[in-house]
Amino acid sequence: MSSNFHSEARLRVRYAETDQMGVVYHSNYLIWFEVGRVELMRAMGLQYKLLEQDHGCMIAVVAVEARYRASARYDDEIAVRTRIVTLRGSVMKIAYDVVRAEDDKLLCEGTTTHVVVNRQMEKTPLPEPYERAFRRLLEADKTQASADETQTIEEV
Amino acid sequence: MSSNFHSEARLRVRYAETDQMGVVYHSNYLIWFEVGRVELMRAMGLQYKLLEQDHGCMIAVVAVEARYRASARYDDEIAVRTRIVTLRGSVMKIAYDVVRAEDDKLLCEGTTTHVVVNRQMEKTPLPEPYERAFRRLLEADKTQASADETQTIEEV
Amino acid sequence: MSSNFHSEARLRVRYAETDQMGVVYHSNYLIWFEVGRVELMRAMGLQYKLLEQDHGCMIAVVAVEARYRASARYDDEIAVRTRIVTLRGSVMKIAYDVVRAEDDKLLCEGTTTHVVVNRQMEKTPLPEPYERAFRRLLEADKTQASADETQTIEEV
Amino acid sequence: MSSNFHSEARLRVRYAETDQMGVVYHSNYLIWFEVGRVELMRAMGLQYKLLEQDHGCMIAVVAVEARYRASARYDDEIAVRTRIVTLRGSVMKIAYDVVRAEDDKLLCEGTTTHVVVNRQMEKTPLPEPYERAFRRLLEADKTQASADETQTIEEV
Repeated sequence: MSSNFHSEARLRVRYAETDQMGVVYHSNYLIWFEVGRVELMRAMGLQYKLLEQDHGCMIAVVAVEARYRASARYDDEIAVRTRIVTLRGSVMKIAYDVVRAEDDKLLCEGTTTHVVVNRQMEKTPLPEPYERAFRRLLEADKTQASADETQTIEEV
Repeated sequence: MSSNFHSEARLRVRYAETDQMGVVYHSNYLIWFEVGRVELMRAMGLQYKLLEQDHGCMIAVVAVEARYRASARYDDEIAVRTRIVTLRGSVMKIAYDVVRAEDDKLLCEGTTTHVVVNRQMEKTPLPEPYERAFRRLLEADKTQASADETQTIEEV
Repeated sequence: MSSNFHSEARLRVRYAETDQMGVVYHSNYLIWFEVGRVELMRAMGLQYKLLEQDHGCMIAVVAVEARYRASARYDDEIAVRTRIVTLRGSVMKIAYDVVRAEDDKLLCEGTTTHVVVNRQMEKTPLPEPYERAFRRLLEADKTQASADETQTIEEV
Repeated sequence: MSSNFHSEARLRVRYAETDQMGVVYHSNYLIWFEVGRVELMRAMGLQYKLLEQDHGCMIAVVAVEARYRASARYDDEIAVRTRIVTLRGSVMKIAYDVVRAEDDKLLCEGTTTHVVVNRQMEKTPLPEPYERAFRRLLEADKTQASADETQTIEEV
């Protein structure tokens, strides 16, 4: 897994996800993105389910972008690699690479933008333990990025 | 429409509903059954949505049967014919014929069995206006059936 | 319908399309976009189905963007307004507004980018009758746009 | 896993699979049945994918039955237990138990009936290696069943 992704989820293409073109219907990648971000949270020791149950918070989707590079096919094993890009107050952006596990072929890359809302669908800050955990990942990235930069300079 | 069905809903097969066999994936018929029973209620002057909103009742599915006779294909116009079979307390059974509208070819026939539940998922009677409307349909059927029987005898 | 859209398709939100947030799950809008573009083609006297059957061509999705403005809810009647934005060789871009029919509330806007491919998933030009029909719509837009501009000047 | 099931597949409930009742929408169980039978074949050393690719055979669904016992909820881990019930020429019947993995709670039980077809959707016998492997499982069951019977007699 590329170092700048925070987690990887695995799934297998279901027959129901194919269409008569013989490949996965494109809207299913958005469902796989969701699998990716739920597993990212689980990898961080958090559960999206509890965010809803214990904090009354939901992470609504406000924007989606996807670029399709190659077709996923029935029974392919798929890896969804997920990375938090930004977190500003109630708004967060997450990026995904969907690859065929067998040969690491990139199938789809995309981002989703989210806003944290309460049960009345009003903007609300991400609850503290979640905010801290997400922040920690982003800080680790920055440290890594500046380390990479230093290294690049040294290599010259 | 065959006289013993209570309503007919129309829909068009979506690309997303096909699979790589080139036909509609079989689980989608259950979603079409649902379209059928919602339109049945609408034809009776009732709205399933309000049953949930105003009465806090939901009609949970407890059993499904489907027999597939022929394949629906992309862009086919589909008619879903729906009929109440029984209503006993909180339990009701509904039957469906899914046909290709163009030539009335039978694609799938099935039944769903439902139980009326409240928000705590406990059995509850169907609210009065709904119960009365459903009962009326079933009575009309019986009258029709006995009329048909009389006619059959006369024809002999 | 806003004058710069080329067609409008209607559909009703299915129970299966909702999620436990009580609103339509976001990936379903991509399926509705598809309903929009199929109906756009039908409004132009073309059938996507025949493009596949008669010409062996498919219109693959290579990119999707969607911005969610408000939530669609169960049983809402939905209008999908569709417009061709560009057509260059095998590549075309289509834009969508998904609105709640009742009050014209904008729920989602988006674009899809497509490439025309043959059965071997190789780029191929859009067959002539299709290309001509799409081109005609785009020309009509330009004429309209320049008419609008003239009018704006006259109004000053 | 109960001894009379031939395989078990695991999956996790996706947000997209829930509906506004807060539970999994009932048609999704049919998709999970399919996950179950594909994994059953994989456990037997067979791949459904290759049946289509190498033998030009498809296993069409001709009937489905499902009885819903309890609700699956978002993020539940699910076990799908699958068993071949009968195989007669081109027709086979498969049974499923869908349970919540955490506490083995039965959520849904069902059967699917299939017919093996070629690309022209005509009945065709199940190709030899597949037929033999399915037959072996059924024979093993019978031996087990008669052993169980013997044991029952001895216990008396």
